[in-house]
Amino acid sequence: MSLLVTGSIGIDTVEAPSGKVRNVLGGSCVYFAYAASFFSDVRLVGVVGDDCPKDFLKPLQKNRRIDLSGVEVRPGSKTFRWHGRYHQDVNRRDTVAVELNVLAERGPTIPEKFRDSRYVFLANTHPALQAEMLGQLKSPKLVVADTMDLWITTQRDALVGMLRRIDGVVLNDSEARLLTGEANLVAAGFQIAEMVRSFAVIKKGEHGSLLITGRRAYPLPSFPTVNVVDPTGAGDSFAGAMMGYLTAADAIDPAALRRAIAYGTVTACFALEGFSLNKFLTTARDDIDARMSEFRELLGF
Amino acid sequence: MSLLVTGSIGIDTVEAPSGKVRNVLGGSCVYFAYAASFFSDVRLVGVVGDDCPKDFLKPLQKNRRIDLSGVEVRPGSKTFRWHGRYHQDVNRRDTVAVELNVLAERGPTIPEKFRDSRYVFLANTHPALQAEMLGQLKSPKLVVADTMDLWITTQRDALVGMLRRIDGVVLNDSEARLLTGEANLVAAGFQIAEMVRSFAVIKKGEHGSLLITGRRAYPLPSFPTVNVVDPTGAGDSFAGAMMGYLTAADAIDPAALRRAIAYGTVTACFALEGFSLNKFLTTARDDIDARMSEFRELLGF
Repeated sequence: MSLLVTGSIGIDTVEAPSGKVRNVLGGSCVYFAYAASFFSDVRLVGVVGDDCPKDFLKPLQKNRRIDLSGVEVRPGSKTFRWHGRYHQDVNRRDTVAVELNVLAERGPTIPEKFRDSRYVFLANTHPALQAEMLGQLKSPKLVVADTMDLWITTQRDALVGMLRRIDGVVLNDSEARLLTGEANLVAAGFQIAEMVRSFAVIKKGEHGSLLITGRRAYPLPSFPTVNVVDPTGAGDSFAGAMMGYLTAADAIDPAALRRAIAYGTVTACFALEGFSLNKFLTTARDDIDARMSEFRELLGF
Repeated sequence: MSLLVTGSIGIDTVEAPSGKVRNVLGGSCVYFAYAASFFSDVRLVGVVGDDCPKDFLKPLQKNRRIDLSGVEVRPGSKTFRWHGRYHQDVNRRDTVAVELNVLAERGPTIPEKFRDSRYVFLANTHPALQAEMLGQLKSPKLVVADTMDLWITTQRDALVGMLRRIDGVVLNDSEARLLTGEANLVAAGFQIAEMVRSFAVIKKGEHGSLLITGRRAYPLPSFPTVNVVDPTGAGDSFAGAMMGYLTAADAIDPAALRRAIAYGTVTACFALEGFSLNKFLTTARDDIDARMSEFRELLGF
């Protein structure tokens, strides 16, 4: 089965209590793709500017499961840049600087050879752009999107219209509350699951996640860890492993979704343990499966 | 086996988005005792003033498992009163008014006939008072205490000294961070578990809990519910069901603790569904067991 992801590729500068890195590989579809590649092949679609260093995307080729032929290098444009600073409590962060650059231009085009993708993740971008990419797909089996507070506030109609056309949505707790006006997350989740065709996943960072599907709410804590180096990309990695698992299993029933989310949880935990893709690059599928077993054991009572 | 609880008995006024109640039965050991009584007999030790309405504690007698002979009615004193107001997001609340009254006087004395209690919970009060009550016990098997930010800030030495003498501590996430200066809750939990003889339980409200015991961290989400009427006493009910289960099982190993915390989680959920003890009074042990089965099912993946 084929998994397609569209999203941002970024040049990140990150400051955290554990250290600082400059101009490292980041962006939603970068973390997503690497996490997904532990489970399935991945087709990555995104745009960088011609300022993007040669070999910048090379880490994504490590396990040879990520097809980068959908990455457009746009002449005369500049790559998206983000500079974030985490507090002592790494659950809080400030954006020091952001340069949208190529993300503020027209979106990427999905290459003809990728349009038959059955599993698709539209990472966070303008909902009109997400809808446009949706229109380029031939017969997807499962389309899931991410979004953010900016679009909920400024592009509500476009967002709601796009959500109506897809199967699932992944968003964080504050976004779920903003989208619904509901303080109770479970109630918010039920409302959001009604906005899409099938399910909603609410990410709660250190507190885990909540899946709403088939009129039921499934909570899951995060995997307990003290080794948090850099939370950047953890949410994208969560979604990546979730979609990668579903693609490999070629299943979208509630039981598969729940296993997918558990895999998303443990895989995201590895993303936290290094800057950029550093920890992922020394992680094997066996490591993820071992942590999955430990997670099951921690949750059994 | 015998379970003893000491703590506050209060006359509460609560405002929540779902309504308002005036002068209702509340207090830490009230919620604790009722929740525990679903599992075991309970000996309640606390003090009220002579302003306490006759029959005020009558709801605690409903299932006839709570021994109220340790409740002292102190002549010339006034009962503890608390007035709280929940926000639209009921995870946030303000204290509108508080009258410590009898809680600011000398503590209760544990009746001679209760001093052989094997399971003991010292609900939140001045740590010197908790230590004094600890000294009155003959040969407890398991002593667990609760505390609060006020004592962490103003009575740190007394608190740390008391913790060293007990087996387990239950506290909420902000208190765990305050006590340790650690932003990472898992790391905070490990530090706190070192301060007591055996284990720490960190309560995270809507996000569930974290148990640290035997050098491992066990996360558990809360039971998902949209039916939150009044969160007052949910944490005390969690601790009550946890201790009630351990008492009935007469076990304190990690496996028993984990089941106890799962029972605490589902029992606390009933406490939320009504003001004061209202929902508890129409809840049977079978209802709790049914929700426990559902909880297991929601968490299996």
